[in-house]
Formats: sequence, structure tokens, C-alpha cells
Amino acid sequence: MNMAFPKPDMTLAERLFAQLQQMSFDGKGITRDAYGPGEQAAHNLVRQLASELGFEVVTDAAANLYVILPGTNRKAKRVVIGSHLDSVPSGGNYDGAAGVLAGLAIVAGWKAEGLVPPCDIVVMAIRAEESAWFPISYLGSKASLGKLTRDDLAIVRRDNQISIDQHIRSCGGNPDNVVEKAPLFGADSLRAFLEIHIEQGPVLESAEIPVGIVSGICGSLRYRFASAYGQYAHSGACPSYCRQDAVVATAELVTEMHRKWHEMENDGHELTVTFGRMFTDPIDADMSKVSGLVKFSIDFRSRNPATLELVNNHLLMFADHLTERHGVQFEFGEQSRSAPALMDSHWIAAFEHSATVLNIANRLMPSGAGHDCAQFVNCGVPGAMLFIRNQHGSHNPDEAMEFADFNQAVTVLNHAIVTELLNL
Amino acid sequence: MNMAFPKPDMTLAERLFAQLQQMSFDGKGITRDAYGPGEQAAHNLVRQLASELGFEVVTDAAANLYVILPGTNRKAKRVVIGSHLDSVPSGGNYDGAAGVLAGLAIVAGWKAEGLVPPCDIVVMAIRAEESAWFPISYLGSKASLGKLTRDDLAIVRRDNQISIDQHIRSCGGNPDNVVEKAPLFGADSLRAFLEIHIEQGPVLESAEIPVGIVSGICGSLRYRFASAYGQYAHSGACPSYCRQDAVVATAELVTEMHRKWHEMENDGHELTVTFGRMFTDPIDADMSKVSGLVKFSIDFRSRNPATLELVNNHLLMFADHLTERHGVQFEFGEQSRSAPALMDSHWIAAFEHSATVLNIANRLMPSGAGHDCAQFVNCGVPGAMLFIRNQHGSHNPDEAMEFADFNQAVTVLNHAIVTELLNL
Repeated sequence: MNMAFPKPDMTLAERLFAQLQQMSFDGKGITRDAYGPGEQAAHNLVRQLASELGFEVVTDAAANLYVILPGTNRKAKRVVIGSHLDSVPSGGNYDGAAGVLAGLAIVAGWKAEGLVPPCDIVVMAIRAEESAWFPISYLGSKASLGKLTRDDLAIVRRDNQISIDQHIRSCGGNPDNVVEKAPLFGADSLRAFLEIHIEQGPVLESAEIPVGIVSGICGSLRYRFASAYGQYAHSGACPSYCRQDAVVATAELVTEMHRKWHEMENDGHELTVTFGRMFTDPIDADMSKVSGLVKFSIDFRSRNPATLELVNNHLLMFADHLTERHGVQFEFGEQSRSAPALMDSHWIAAFEHSATVLNIANRLMPSGAGHDCAQFVNCGVPGAMLFIRNQHGSHNPDEAMEFADFNQAVTVLNHAIVTELLNL
Repeated sequence: MNMAFPKPDMTLAERLFAQLQQMSFDGKGITRDAYGPGEQAAHNLVRQLASELGFEVVTDAAANLYVILPGTNRKAKRVVIGSHLDSVPSGGNYDGAAGVLAGLAIVAGWKAEGLVPPCDIVVMAIRAEESAWFPISYLGSKASLGKLTRDDLAIVRRDNQISIDQHIRSCGGNPDNVVEKAPLFGADSLRAFLEIHIEQGPVLESAEIPVGIVSGICGSLRYRFASAYGQYAHSGACPSYCRQDAVVATAELVTEMHRKWHEMENDGHELTVTFGRMFTDPIDADMSKVSGLVKFSIDFRSRNPATLELVNNHLLMFADHLTERHGVQFEFGEQSRSAPALMDSHWIAAFEHSATVLNIANRLMPSGAGHDCAQFVNCGVPGAMLFIRNQHGSHNPDEAMEFADFNQAVTVLNHAIVTELLNL
């Protein structure tokens, strides 16, 4: 290579992490509320810094923020590097923000070298990715792709009962345009959507590998409000043969689905099975009563839709069996699904090549968690993701990440983009 | 038989049931709050009626009420017919009250015939049997037997935070005398404690038998506040091999203990196993998280203390196994026990004899529920109980009982007392 190879501006990223940490600390963890003051402050910070550095900065109708390094051909399909700036309540500083700061570090590096790409490179700060605030995830990326409806805009935030419409408006967006006008940067105008994100799980940490190359983002099949209906009865006076015990039936369902999960894994399926919430009635249940009601949630995830079908069929079949056995009726309630998203094989190969050239240890792995990137992939945009090794999961104040690992991931992404765009 | 055989005054009982129903209906069910206005109104009703009928009426230091049919020898050991007048919130009209009204119907019948027993027959209306109000059961019967301590008196009612001491005082009792003075009718002065109670379970109903003769009252071994501690994690990002899932571990515990229960029943053990309450954390748990915490209650009951030991040992052993398997720690918290109480064989035989003479279908059966009678038995008083077939369990507004079945049980009890006391 004869030309100057751009180096991501890691000093800039480090300073931004510190500023975000300071402005978003709630006394316990990091809170950047979606379409609220927390997220807005982060957007303001990025906007001001990008303007100071001389980048073009625009926002779309949903108040997503775009920092643009202009290319030679402004009409060529754009490469977007993006992630979200909101967090869950009392979460960590890196979930989401790491992907935006990675993009800023990269375009700042290019700009410092005076390097002009053949197409625009756009750093996208996405709104409202987390489902903690609104009962709908990926609001910002969906809006940017023209996927929100007027009905969606009427949905209210859990904590303040104010609609998405109002929230978008108060952040300077135009909700009418979100549903009526074509997107600012539609799927057809994008060459790739590239996202760096902390792993949120223990796989890289336990394998002592700093960077993951994501093979695909799992889809999900979920029942948020499932119920088991039995019959309340006196715990001493009701013998076993006439019980309809909702706790026992639900426990047997969980036990069996956990067994089935391992059986399917042994058969080569890739999935997760989680019963995250489970509770008897706060008023009617008692130590000295057989319980007549259990409410619970079910979350199945897999990159393979057929695997989701298979595990769901087993659930329904076994629930019928439990109804026969215990006289307990299961009502699973509304089923929600999200489609799996396979990462673009060309970009996966590019990441693998760059990591090899740079001698950075890496592993190809699926993402069990959902990400904005999947929204773009499901609209036909080639998508790719890098994971950063992180500690203590995410969505909690203990979420941690080594800056050195962030550096490795950004270096791989930058190298791959340089190689791809400049044909080095 | 040449002499007039006393007939219980069933008209009186029927009228009292209607009056209690009317004064205790809360719009949904029956509420007679322990040591509160609801229970007090029921005591006032019984007191007034008994006085009108010319009975001696006294109360003890804990405000338990005694309606006395004097015997020839006032110093002879007394026969007590009793039960409680409090109810759970929005419960039924018969749980407790049936036993008091049975006693009143019987002594009214004797009085109407001018029959004088050899010893006093005492109808006891007991205070505060239910654990719904105070976090301690059988308050009235314990107090009447001199078993309450000054520490107990400081315990407050769940709904109003007012102490037992204050509650007793406001009902005309003398809490100091409860702990300092000898009981009004101590265990040594009692020939028998006889209690009629609705079954609260479906055994008699499903067997189409109106009357149960109780063989014994189960003891219990309980953990009111048990916990399983796992590790919260992202449901998609945390693979099976590194999960510490509190829901799965608890589900496997419930499933195994339910299996063990049936195994023990097949081996001839008599017991019940109930996990009545179970809940993940209302704030930290989420559909998309592996749960790090489950709280639950355990209630083991049996007439045989060795059976309780056996099932408890299995619980602890299996919990250790689950900790090894899932990395989930179980903390069972404070263990509470109540001693089983075997019914007096002489009175059981008397009930069986009377039922046979009267041609009333009956079944010998254990009581899984606890009753005031157990307190007397555990103080050395011969105790015996009859169950009345009832519908829809108890502790709920749907609790039901056929008056004809009540009549059968009262007829058996009266016949047995007549036979026993008058040597007919």
C-alpha cells in the first residue's frame, strides 16, 4: 500500500464515551430514554461534534441523525455505519452507543487523512431501538425505512403515556412525513448497513476472543402474555387426584421445553428457549392454596425459521398433554414473530479477511439478540455486524467493555471498508 | 330409649346462618375480620341470642365467647363444642361459623327438653382462627389455652398495623390477663373438644357422602419465603451452557417434588405437597431475560411427622442437585412447623356408632387443613371433629354447603354426646 491508510480517531471515541457516561448517569446506571431528554442529549452531543469537525449533518422525519462523509459520487449507493443511542433504564454506556462512536471514529479518521470515498459514508445515530420504552422495538430504523404506520405512531411510551407521534415531534421530527413521505435514505439507496455492537453475552469473554463476526441475527417467536388456568383449592384439603394445579402444570411445561431445547441442540439446531417471567396471582395465590393461575412469558430464538416452528409445535403439543394430565388450560395469547436476518456473505468474508490481515482473533457467531441491522437486511440491504467482547451482559449497570476490544473491532471494520471502497 | 331424646334446634341454626350472611356480606363474599367489626358483630349476635335463650354467657381474657348449658356437677370436666367466627376476606359463610351454630343448635335442643347433662356443655365461639388477618393462626384457641406470649401480643394485623394487644382490648378483652393469668377454662378442665367444620375439599362431594369423621389433623412443614438465585442474562445472547436460570431450576424442583409426592403416596404415605406462590421479580424479570430470581412458597402436610421429614429431606437433597446442575442457589428461609393432631379414638368410635345407628353415610378421613381442635389436642384435650360435605372449597365467595348435610353432621354429634353423657 502506497497511500496513507486512514486510522480511526480513537481519542475522539474515548472522549465521547466519557461525555455520554457523564450526561447519562442516573445514579445507578445509564439512562438514555428513547425520544426523551436522555437520548436527545446524546444526539445533541453527536450533532455538535460532527458539525465542529465539518461533516454534513442531517436528520430524517423520525429525528434519526446522519453524519455524512461525502463521496466522489454523491448519487452512488451509500455505506451506512450505524447503531442506536438510546439505552434501557439503568443500563450500560456501550449498548448501542459503541456502534455510533465506531462510525464517527472511522469517518473522522478518513477526514483527517483527506481521503474521499467513492460514495458517501454515513454514520447513522438511530432512535429508540430498545423495547423498554415503547412496546415496539427498532422504532428509529423502521421509521427510516418507511415501515411505520399511522397506528404505530399512536402507541404511547410505557412510563409517560405520551404517543410516539408527540415524542417524534418534541425531538424536532415530523411524524406526518414519517408515514406519508418517502424515506430520506431508502433501502434502495444503501450499499450496506454495517453495525458494531457489544456482544451482550458471555461467548467471546469465555473464549478469550475480542471480536465476533456475526453470521446472522436470530428471529424470535414469542408469547408475552401466556397463562395457565387451573383451579384454586385448599392445599391441605384437596388431595392429589382432584387437583388442577397451575404451578405444577407450568413447571412441567418449563422442564419439558428445557429438555427439548437440549435435545434439539444435540440434533444440530441452534436456538434459545427462555421463560423470563412467571408469576402466580399477587392477590389470589397463597402458601396454603393450590394455585389456579400462572402467568408467564416465552421467548424462542433461532436463525432458522424451521427451528422456531419445530420448538413451537412441541410447546403446543406438550401443553395439550398437560391439559389432559392436570386439567390445566393453557392460553398462550398473542404470538409475535420477528424474522431472522442472515448477514451478507460478501461482508462476512471482508471482515474475516481484514481480521486475518490485522492478526485480530475473531469468531464467526450468531447473534441471539436482535439489532437494527436486521431491519435493514429484511428490507434488502446487505448487512453485516461485528461484536465486541464485553463483560456482565447488557441492560444492567454492570455492563462493561474494554476499550482495547472496541479498538480491535473498529480497526477491523475500518480496514474492511477501506479495502472494499478503495479496492486496496 | 324411654326418655325424650333432645333434638338440635335446626330452625335456630338456619336463622343464624341467614343473619350472619346478611351482616357479613361485603358485596362480593363474607368478611368477618378477626378482632375487628366483622367478627365482633358475629360475637354480639351469638351473645344476644344465647342470653335471650337463658344460657350463661361468659368471655375470657382474649374475648373468646362461651355459651354454657350447666351440668349437674359444675366442677366436672366440661364438654366443649366449638369453632371460630372469623372468616378470611371475601370468604364464605360456613367456614368456622357452622361449628358454633352446630353447638348452639345442640344446647338449645337440650334446654328445650329440660335435659340437664352431668357436666357443663360449653359452646365456644373462638376468635381469630384464620391466618389471613394476623401472621399467626389459631390466636383465640391458643389464648384460651394460655399459649400466647407477650411477644405474640405485639404482632400487628396485616391490613391496619394495629397490635393483637390493642385488638383484644378493643373487643373487651384483657391482653395482660391473657399472658399473666391462668385460662378461664384450661386444658385440664376439659373432657373433650368437639368441632364440626365444612370439609373445604372435594373428597365428600365427589364420594357423595354427607359426613366425614376426622381421623386426625395434618401437621405442616412450610417455607413461606423460599428463593432461587440464578443470574440475569440476555435471553438471546446467553447460550444454554452458561445459563443460571432460576425459573428452570425452580420448575425442575416443583416437577420433581410432585413426582416424589406420588411415589410416596404409592408407598402408603399420606401427604400433600403444594407450591402455592411463585413469582419472578416484578421489576427485573423480562420476557427477553433469563431470570436471576424466583420467590416461592412450599407447604408440606401430613398426619405423620416422619413423612414430613422424609419429603423435606428429599427437597433439600434435590435442591443441592439442582445447584450443581444449574448454578442456582436455593435459600428456603425460615421453616415453620405445626404438629399433627390425632383425633381421640373413643370419640371417633362414638361418632361411627351414632352415624351407624342414625343410618347416616360417613367416611373416616384425615383433615389436611388445620383447625382449632388441633390446639386443644396438642394440650392434651381429647378432640374429635366431623366434616360436612361442601362445595367449591372454602376461603372464597363461592364456598357452599347444603343445610341438609349440616343437619346430618349436627345430628351425629348430638347423638354421640347424648349417648356419651347420658349413657344411653
